[in-house]
Amino acid sequence: MTALVATSNQIKYASPFADIAFEFAKVRAETERLCEPLESDDYVIQSMADVSPPKWHLAHTTWFFENFVLAPFVPGYVPFHPKFGYLFNSYYQSVGAFHPRVQRALSRPTVSQVYEYRKHVDLHLRELLIRAEGEALQEIGARVELGLHHEQQHQELLLTDIKHIFASNPLRPAYHRAPSRQESSSALRFFEFPGGLKQIGHDGEGFGYDNEMLRHPVYAADYDLASRLVTNGEFLQFIEAGGYRDPQYWLSEGWNVVNERGWSAPLYWERDATGAWQIMTLSGMTAIDEAEPACHVSYFEADAYARWAGKRLPTEAEWELAAQALPIQGNFRESGGLHPQAAGKSEGPAQLFGDVWEWTQSPYSAYPGYRPAPGSLGEYNGKFMCNQFVLRGGSCATPRSHIRATYRNFFTAADRWQFTGIRLARDRLAQKDRQAHMP
Amino acid sequence: MTALVATSNQIKYASPFADIAFEFAKVRAETERLCEPLESDDYVIQSMADVSPPKWHLAHTTWFFENFVLAPFVPGYVPFHPKFGYLFNSYYQSVGAFHPRVQRALSRPTVSQVYEYRKHVDLHLRELLIRAEGEALQEIGARVELGLHHEQQHQELLLTDIKHIFASNPLRPAYHRAPSRQESSSALRFFEFPGGLKQIGHDGEGFGYDNEMLRHPVYAADYDLASRLVTNGEFLQFIEAGGYRDPQYWLSEGWNVVNERGWSAPLYWERDATGAWQIMTLSGMTAIDEAEPACHVSYFEADAYARWAGKRLPTEAEWELAAQALPIQGNFRESGGLHPQAAGKSEGPAQLFGDVWEWTQSPYSAYPGYRPAPGSLGEYNGKFMCNQFVLRGGSCATPRSHIRATYRNFFTAADRWQFTGIRLARDRLAQKDRQAHMP
Amino acid sequence: MTALVATSNQIKYASPFADIAFEFAKVRAETERLCEPLESDDYVIQSMADVSPPKWHLAHTTWFFENFVLAPFVPGYVPFHPKFGYLFNSYYQSVGAFHPRVQRALSRPTVSQVYEYRKHVDLHLRELLIRAEGEALQEIGARVELGLHHEQQHQELLLTDIKHIFASNPLRPAYHRAPSRQESSSALRFFEFPGGLKQIGHDGEGFGYDNEMLRHPVYAADYDLASRLVTNGEFLQFIEAGGYRDPQYWLSEGWNVVNERGWSAPLYWERDATGAWQIMTLSGMTAIDEAEPACHVSYFEADAYARWAGKRLPTEAEWELAAQALPIQGNFRESGGLHPQAAGKSEGPAQLFGDVWEWTQSPYSAYPGYRPAPGSLGEYNGKFMCNQFVLRGGSCATPRSHIRATYRNFFTAADRWQFTGIRLARDRLAQKDRQAHMP
Amino acid sequence: MTALVATSNQIKYASPFADIAFEFAKVRAETERLCEPLESDDYVIQSMADVSPPKWHLAHTTWFFENFVLAPFVPGYVPFHPKFGYLFNSYYQSVGAFHPRVQRALSRPTVSQVYEYRKHVDLHLRELLIRAEGEALQEIGARVELGLHHEQQHQELLLTDIKHIFASNPLRPAYHRAPSRQESSSALRFFEFPGGLKQIGHDGEGFGYDNEMLRHPVYAADYDLASRLVTNGEFLQFIEAGGYRDPQYWLSEGWNVVNERGWSAPLYWERDATGAWQIMTLSGMTAIDEAEPACHVSYFEADAYARWAGKRLPTEAEWELAAQALPIQGNFRESGGLHPQAAGKSEGPAQLFGDVWEWTQSPYSAYPGYRPAPGSLGEYNGKFMCNQFVLRGGSCATPRSHIRATYRNFFTAADRWQFTGIRLARDRLAQKDRQAHMP
Repeated sequence: MTALVATSNQIKYASPFADIAFEFAKVRAETERLCEPLESDDYVIQSMADVSPPKWHLAHTTWFFENFVLAPFVPGYVPFHPKFGYLFNSYYQSVGAFHPRVQRALSRPTVSQVYEYRKHVDLHLRELLIRAEGEALQEIGARVELGLHHEQQHQELLLTDIKHIFASNPLRPAYHRAPSRQESSSALRFFEFPGGLKQIGHDGEGFGYDNEMLRHPVYAADYDLASRLVTNGEFLQFIEAGGYRDPQYWLSEGWNVVNERGWSAPLYWERDATGAWQIMTLSGMTAIDEAEPACHVSYFEADAYARWAGKRLPTEAEWELAAQALPIQGNFRESGGLHPQAAGKSEGPAQLFGDVWEWTQSPYSAYPGYRPAPGSLGEYNGKFMCNQFVLRGGSCATPRSHIRATYRNFFTAADRWQFTGIRLARDRLAQKDRQAHMP
Repeated sequence: MTALVATSNQIKYASPFADIAFEFAKVRAETERLCEPLESDDYVIQSMADVSPPKWHLAHTTWFFENFVLAPFVPGYVPFHPKFGYLFNSYYQSVGAFHPRVQRALSRPTVSQVYEYRKHVDLHLRELLIRAEGEALQEIGARVELGLHHEQQHQELLLTDIKHIFASNPLRPAYHRAPSRQESSSALRFFEFPGGLKQIGHDGEGFGYDNEMLRHPVYAADYDLASRLVTNGEFLQFIEAGGYRDPQYWLSEGWNVVNERGWSAPLYWERDATGAWQIMTLSGMTAIDEAEPACHVSYFEADAYARWAGKRLPTEAEWELAAQALPIQGNFRESGGLHPQAAGKSEGPAQLFGDVWEWTQSPYSAYPGYRPAPGSLGEYNGKFMCNQFVLRGGSCATPRSHIRATYRNFFTAADRWQFTGIRLARDRLAQKDRQAHMP
Repeated sequence: MTALVATSNQIKYASPFADIAFEFAKVRAETERLCEPLESDDYVIQSMADVSPPKWHLAHTTWFFENFVLAPFVPGYVPFHPKFGYLFNSYYQSVGAFHPRVQRALSRPTVSQVYEYRKHVDLHLRELLIRAEGEALQEIGARVELGLHHEQQHQELLLTDIKHIFASNPLRPAYHRAPSRQESSSALRFFEFPGGLKQIGHDGEGFGYDNEMLRHPVYAADYDLASRLVTNGEFLQFIEAGGYRDPQYWLSEGWNVVNERGWSAPLYWERDATGAWQIMTLSGMTAIDEAEPACHVSYFEADAYARWAGKRLPTEAEWELAAQALPIQGNFRESGGLHPQAAGKSEGPAQLFGDVWEWTQSPYSAYPGYRPAPGSLGEYNGKFMCNQFVLRGGSCATPRSHIRATYRNFFTAADRWQFTGIRLARDRLAQKDRQAHMP
Repeated sequence: MTALVATSNQIKYASPFADIAFEFAKVRAETERLCEPLESDDYVIQSMADVSPPKWHLAHTTWFFENFVLAPFVPGYVPFHPKFGYLFNSYYQSVGAFHPRVQRALSRPTVSQVYEYRKHVDLHLRELLIRAEGEALQEIGARVELGLHHEQQHQELLLTDIKHIFASNPLRPAYHRAPSRQESSSALRFFEFPGGLKQIGHDGEGFGYDNEMLRHPVYAADYDLASRLVTNGEFLQFIEAGGYRDPQYWLSEGWNVVNERGWSAPLYWERDATGAWQIMTLSGMTAIDEAEPACHVSYFEADAYARWAGKRLPTEAEWELAAQALPIQGNFRESGGLHPQAAGKSEGPAQLFGDVWEWTQSPYSAYPGYRPAPGSLGEYNGKFMCNQFVLRGGSCATPRSHIRATYRNFFTAADRWQFTGIRLARDRLAQKDRQAHMP
C-alpha cells in the first residue's frame, strides 16, 4: 500500500506520532460531518451495484482499522461484532469470506449501531496509539496512515454515492445548499511541453500508495496540453453535432455501451419540459452552466469527445510531467461547493488539481518493478490492474490533503458516477511532419 | 373487485356506515401496529424484486385511498405530494406511469414523511365518510371496503416481506418474540368427499373480489382430501429420499428452477454446523419442529412432494367444496405466533383455514362469465390470470376477517416467500377400477 | 402416452399389423420428403433456442424408435452409435443425460450420417415387426404407433422450424413455391351452443395421447362461438387502433413481453419501404392478404385482440364440444399450401380443423384422474403441465391423420413461431341478464 | 492499416506487381486448402459468439477485396449479391449496417454459393491487377497487400474456430492426422537483457499494420526473459498446487471469471475416466504431453501462473527488444502439426516465434503519435484499443510470412480459444536491492 507497508517492519511511517493521532481524529470526524445532511433513510440505499450505502462506508472504513490495526496489535482484542468482519470486508479475499457487493443494502446493523461501532474502534485505536512504542508503533503508524488515506477515498465515494442515490430518487433531493458559482471561462489554448527521458512516480518521500511507486524513467515525445478542462458548452457542441450517434468517434466497446444503455449525454444531464438541459448536483437540479467543466463522463465519452475535437487524451506520464512542478491547489472538497467550477484566468495550465478527475489514455498497469505489499494489504491496488484507465488530479470531492501529482486513480471505461472530466492533449508533430517521417 | 364495484352505482356496500368508519380506523391502525417492531433502517430495504420495503407498503395502501376515493369524491382535492402518485402506484397502467417495481428502495420520502402522508389521508377520508351521503356514500363505502381488504392483503405482505428482509440479513434479526409452540401432530388420514355437479364461487353476499364471482356449477369426481397439512417431518423424508435430486417427481420447468437456483430444501431452511436443520421465523432462527406444517414451499415443491407421496394436489374446486361447510377458524394472524402450528387432533379435515396457504393444482383462470370491474380497479385481479396457481385458505399471517372459503389467492409456481404449504388429495377411483374403465 | 401404453401389457395397439408396417414406411418416408427442398446447409441451423435444426429432427425421431422399441425388444441390439443416445434424446431424464437443447446446431454427425442412421433403424424395425408375435407384438405395435404420432408432431415442427430458419436469414429464402391462394372471406357471425353437463376427452377408441384421456364430464354454460378465424384484415384494425401500445387489453405479463421484445405486429410481419405489410411464408415474402386468418400470434396477442374486440377466447371444453360432431376436414398439410387460407362460405363454424392452431383460454392441466404412463414414456406429456395454454384443431402444417377433436396441443403464452391464430367466443348471458343475477 | 494506406496516395505498396498477383493467388488458394478436410456441415457452425462459421470466413475475406478494392477501383462494378455487403461486413460501421456477430450461423448463401463468390471476386481482382497502372495501381496494390494480410489473419482464425467447433461437438472429431510429436524439453533458464533507452515499433520498411507504427523510443529497465515457454508439466504443478482455487494469484476480475465459468484447467483440457488429463487438438483427443508448451490459457491464467511462480509476464517492449534481433523461425502453420511443440535445446531464448502467442502484461494501447488510417480502413485496429492485452510472436497456426517482431496481436483477458501461452520474465533488481532503493 505504502512504501512503509510494502517494506514492512524496518521503516517508519511518514508522519510523526502527534500528527497521526491528530490526523486520525480529524479524518474520522470529517467522515461523520459529511453525513450530517443525511436523513436516517438515506444511509441504507444502494442505488446501483457500484454504489455502497452511506452506512456501509461508515462501517467499512472502521473495519479497516479494526482488522488491520486493532486485531493484530491489541492483545486479546475481541471484534465489536463477530459478523462485522464478514459484512464490512470489501474485497480482501485473504482476510476471509465477505458479503456480496450487490447486497450491501442491509437494515441491520442500524445506523446508530454503526456509529457505536465507530466510537468503539476509535476509542481502542486512540488507546493503542498512546501505548504503542518502538517498531510496533512504526508499523501501527504506517497502517493508521494508510487507513486514513483509505478513509479519505471513501469520503469521496460517500459524496459520489450520495449524489447517485439522490439522483436516482424521483424527488431529486438536495444534499446541501450550494454557494453561488463563478461564471466565466477562458478560451482554450495549448501549452507546449518538451519531451525526452523524464522521471515519474513517487519517490518515497511522504505517503504514497504502492501503485505509484517507484519513481522511474519514462520517455515522452514533445506534446501540448490544454490550458483547462473541456467545458459543458464545448461538450454540448459535441452532443448537438450528433456525437453520440456517430460511431466514427467511439471505441468499439464504447459504441456498444452507448447503444445498450441509450446514452445521449453525460450522466445526470436531463432535458426539462422546454428541452433545456438541467443537471443534477449535490444542491439538486440546476440549469447547466456552459462555462463549467463537463463532468460525469466515462472514458468512452472523453475519448470520443477528444477524437471529435481532433485531439487526444493525455497519457498519465504527460499529465504527471505537467503537474509535478505545480502547487497542489484548486477546487477541492474544502471549497465547499462539491461541484466543478469554471476555470477563470490563468497563466499556465489551470484545473490540473481539483474540479474533476481527468481521464488519461493510460490503462492502469504496474509501474516497472511494482510489487504489491505482502499480506492482505497487497490486495489494495494490484489486483485491479486490468481493464481500468488511470485518472489524475483529484476532484471537487477530494480532500486537498489526499491528492498529489503522482496519485493514480482508476475506473473502468464505462464508469461515470465519479466527478470525471476531460483535458485534451495533442502531438507536437504536425501532420506535414508526420508524412515526412513516413517511408 | 367486489360485486359492488363490479356493478357500480346502483348497489350499496356490504357494511353499514358505522361499520365502515370503524373498520377503516381499525385496519389502518393495525397496519401501523405491525410496523412497531421495526427499526427506521428496516423500512427501506427491498431484499429481492418481489419484496417491497415496509415504507412502500405504508404509502401504497394510503395512495389507494387517495387515488380511488379522495381524488374522485372530494371536490378540489389536492394530492399530498405531486410525485406520490408516480411513486406509490403499484401497477395500475390506466392511472398513469409508475415507478419501476425493482426500484422501490428509496430514501425519500422518509419514514416520517410517509407517516404524515397516512395521517393526512386518514383525516380527509374520515371527513369524507362523515359528509358523504346517498349514492356517493354507497360508492365511497364500496371503495373504502375494497381499500381495507386491499390493505389487509398488504398487511400479510408486510409480514412476509419483513421475514424475507430479515432472513436475507446475515445477522438474522427477530421481528418479535414467539409464544411457545404446540408440539404434537396426528397421523395422516384421508376424508372422502362425494363428487357430482356442485356449486363454487362467491354468491354476492358480503364482500368478495371480482375473481371469486360468480357462483357457478362445476363437476367434480369423488375424491379424498388429507386430514391435515404435510408436516416438516414428512417433508424431511422427501428431502432425505433424494427428492430434490430426482427429476421424476418434478415438472420440467420446476426441475430447471431447482437446478438453476440450487434448491435442496424449502426457503428459510438451513443446516447448522452440526448438520441439524434450522429454520428462519419471525422470531429468528429456531430448530425445526417436525410436527409443524411444512412451509415456504413453491408450487413445484408441493407438486413434487405429492408425486413422491403417490398423491396429488387438490383442485381449487375440491378444496372449496370441502371448506365451504366449515367454520372459518384456525391459526390466523390474530393468534400472534405468525408461524404455522402442528395440527393437533380433529374430527374432520384440520387446518383448512390459517397456518399456510394451500397450493392447488388449479391454474389461476377466469371463472365462467368473469368480467373485470370497469375502470382502473379492473386491473386489480384480471390481468394476472396467466402463469399463476391458486392457493386457498389463508395463513398464520392472514387477518381472520380477510379470508373466506371462496377466496382465491395466486402466485407463480416458483414463489415461496409467502406462508405456503401442502395438502394432499387423491382420486377415489382405485387403479383396478381405472383399468376396468379403459378400452 | 397412449391408452395402450398407459395400461401396458394387456391390451393391443389400435391398428392391425399390416397397417402399422405400412404406416411406418409411409410416415418415415414423408419426413424425408419434407426435407427434399433443403440445401445441405439448412439442416444445421438453430435460429433460436426453441428451434431444432432439421438434422436433429431427423435423428431424434429415429432415436425414439431405437431407444423405445429396438433397444428393449431386439435381443442384443447395439445402438448405431454410442453417443447418439446422448445427442438425440430430447428431454427424457429417466433415459439418461442429454445434450443441452440450446446447442443442437452440430456439424457432426453429418447430414448423410443421419440419413444412414435412419436407414439402419428403419431396417431393424421392419425386421422386428415381421418377427414379433404375441404380447410383444402388441407392445411393439403400440410403441411404434406412438412413435409415428411422435414423428408426425416433428414433421410439423420441421416445417415451423424451417420457416423460422428462413425468416431469420436476411436473404429470406423460399422453401417451396406456393399454389395460388383463395381470396374471399365471409362476415363474422356467432353460432350458439347450449351448455349443460357434457363429456369431453378421449374415449379410448383409436389412438390418443395420455393427456387427452379419459373422457369425463364437464359443465359448460351456454356460449357462442365465432363462425371463422380472425382475419389479417381484422387484426390490422387492432394494430391500427394502437392495440400494441395500450396496456388495457393485455395481461400484465403480456404487456411486459410486448415492451421487452418490441412487438408491434405478429411474427413474420414486416413493413416494406412503402409502409405496406409483407409477411414471410414458406414461399418467401408476400403481400398480406386481409382475408386470410391472422397467424403467428402468441396467446398474449390472441387474448389482447379478443378483449379489444369485446369478446374472449373459448375454453378448450367449449372448442371441443363444438368440434366433436364435425368431420375432420380443412386446410391441412396435405393441401400443400403450408399457409392458412381464407374461410370461404360455410353453413356452420368453419376452419375448426386445419389452417391455424386455435389458442384457448384453458391452461394446460391434467384431466381428472390423469396419470402419466409408467416409465420414460410418462415424460412425454405430463411434466409440461405448467405455464402453458391449450391449442386446438391443428394447422396447415399438421398431417390430416394426426389430428382429432380431443387433441390437446400446448405452448407457452409468448410462443408464436407455430401456425397459431384466434377464434373468438362470447358468453350468452347478456350484460342485462348478468346484473339480474347479481345480489 | 499499413504505412502505405495510412499515408494514402503518394507512396507505393511494399511489393512489386508480379509479387502481389502471385501472392494473391497463393493466399486465396491457401484459405481454401485449409477447408479441404471439412464436411459441408462444418462450414455453418458458430460454436460460441467469438467463433465465426468457416463459411463466413471464406465470404468475409472475399468481401474485404470486393468492398475495399473492386468497388472503388472497377468502374461500374456491381456487387456479386446486393445483401453480401450487409452479411459479410464484420465491423466497419462507416461502410454501412452489418449483420449481428452472434447470428453468423446462416444456411444461405450455401457453401457452394460462397465458393462461387470467391471465384467471382478473384476473377475480377486479377483483371484489375492486370489493367491498373500508375497511382491507382499503387493504391490497389497497397490495399490488396492489406487484404492478404487480413486473409492470413482469418486463416489462423479459421483453424482456431474449427478447433473450437470440433471441441464443442460431443463426438470430438479430428480435423487432420497429426505428425508424430517431439518429446523432450529443456530446463527453464533466464537470459539477461540490458535496459536503457531503446527503439521498438515498425520502421516502415515492408508491410506493417498501423498499430505497430511508428518506431519510437521506449525506456526499459534491465530484465530477464525465460529461455522457453511454460510447459504443460509446469502448468500441471500450478493446477495440482490448487492454483485455480486460491484467489491470491488472480486479478480480481480474473477470479470472478474463474468462479463464474468454473475454470479448473486451460481450455480443451479434460480428465478421462481414470483421471488422466487429455487435451483436444486438431487431431482429436490425445494424452497430455508434459514437455509441450501450455496452450489455450487466458491472460488471467497466464498472469496467475506467473505470480504463483514468483515471476511476471514480460511487457511487449521487453518481448520485442529480445525478439528483434532473432531470425523469424519456429513452429508455424507450415510445419503442419497445428500444435505447439516441446522446445528442444537452444543457445538463446527459444520459441519466441511460433508455437503459441505469448501474453504480455501490456494493455493494447496506441503508440505515440498513432493515427488510424483515414476512411473505413481506419476501423481495422484503432477502435479496439480498450480492455485488450497484447500478444506477441505468432503461433503454430500463423503463416510464417505473416509474423514479424513488431507484430501486435490483441485479445481480451478472458479469451483462450486462440493458441495462447506463457513466457515468464523477471526484474533484474533483486529484492535486497529493491529495499535499498526504498525511503
